[in-house]
Amino acid sequence: MIATRVTTDVYARVQHFYARQMQALDDRRFEEYAATFTEDGVFQHSPDIEPARGRAAILDTLVEFDRRFADDPVRRRHWYNQILLEAREDGSLGATVYTLVVHVRPGVRQPEIAPSCVVHDVLELTGDDDVLTRSRLVAYDHLA
Amino acid sequence: MIATRVTTDVYARVQHFYARQMQALDDRRFEEYAATFTEDGVFQHSPDIEPARGRAAILDTLVEFDRRFADDPVRRRHWYNQILLEAREDGSLGATVYTLVVHVRPGVRQPEIAPSCVVHDVLELTGDDDVLTRSRLVAYDHLA
Amino acid sequence: MIATRVTTDVYARVQHFYARQMQALDDRRFEEYAATFTEDGVFQHSPDIEPARGRAAILDTLVEFDRRFADDPVRRRHWYNQILLEAREDGSLGATVYTLVVHVRPGVRQPEIAPSCVVHDVLELTGDDDVLTRSRLVAYDHLA
Repeated sequence: MIATRVTTDVYARVQHFYARQMQALDDRRFEEYAATFTEDGVFQHSPDIEPARGRAAILDTLVEFDRRFADDPVRRRHWYNQILLEAREDGSLGATVYTLVVHVRPGVRQPEIAPSCVVHDVLELTGDDDVLTRSRLVAYDHLA
Repeated sequence: MIATRVTTDVYARVQHFYARQMQALDDRRFEEYAATFTEDGVFQHSPDIEPARGRAAILDTLVEFDRRFADDPVRRRHWYNQILLEAREDGSLGATVYTLVVHVRPGVRQPEIAPSCVVHDVLELTGDDDVLTRSRLVAYDHLA
Repeated sequence: MIATRVTTDVYARVQHFYARQMQALDDRRFEEYAATFTEDGVFQHSPDIEPARGRAAILDTLVEFDRRFADDPVRRRHWYNQILLEAREDGSLGATVYTLVVHVRPGVRQPEIAPSCVVHDVLELTGDDDVLTRSRLVAYDHLA
């Protein structure tokens, strides 16, 4: 029943925040993505890396990840589903979100859709009706 | 125009309810899933079975289905999309929802995404801002 | 920050509108789909066609597209994700939406999921809490 203590207003706000955050990531606007985290935000995008701490480190980790694909014109789209929110005692929100990553290559109509992940976020609601990510941990279903 | 008679508050509430209900199912918390139905709830998860009536029967049908996969470490994630709600005269809601089932096996990065279904629900709004499923019928697109 | 100027009420209303619009399209209720556009609405569903202008032309383009599949009993389902809205100065909304098209054929459990697209819409909020599409442009990721 915890989930329903989150107002529907907050629920829609979080959905919209994720749309903005993920479109920034997928369009490779990495500075904009990093700015969706709190100043001391923590981000672990893959199970085999150390978490990045702070916006500068988050930006670095994304630029580095992106460099691996310098010769691969792949376009990624992160899909989210079944967003579950829980109010936490300090006023933040816990979020558990299903994720699929769609990979598209030029001229290839059929995308690759993999892997299936679960995003575990802690979110902060800001005064101006916005949202920031305090921490993000991505769990891969096939490695669970 | 029927769809718009459902308030946006109810729309977000139903989205959140589905996230909670499906995460319970996919995590194999079957008692929790059964409790998201009304006491006399009806659930038909496959076209080749008789509907289960009441929470105890719903729990039984899930445990039985799950037993078939005792030797298969598959992890399922139910994705929902394009949730359409219609207010019904008795105060309940009719819901028509696109569904895809993501199947992940350990060590296999590429999930199988099948089948495509449509969930037909009747939902009840409860006094404490929660939602319960009165009936659920799953139609498989490839068997339509 | 533009995105957050859109109220959460409008966000949920647009989600519900899309569910209704896409279920009409996928059920081949093409007149109902055409009526979700403004009278002078513009619709370009594929990059290789001229945009259709006005409801009658939109209806024609859908019927023509549908005729190509007269001998193919394919069932399509349009999935939307990461809906990003921006308030425009004239009171309309710009929408950027991830899309995947699920293709199902009778007796084949595994759907084909392709292509990955981005829908670029301009939406109008109507007086009776409804939404209309003023223009829709579909960009294919593999042709970008």
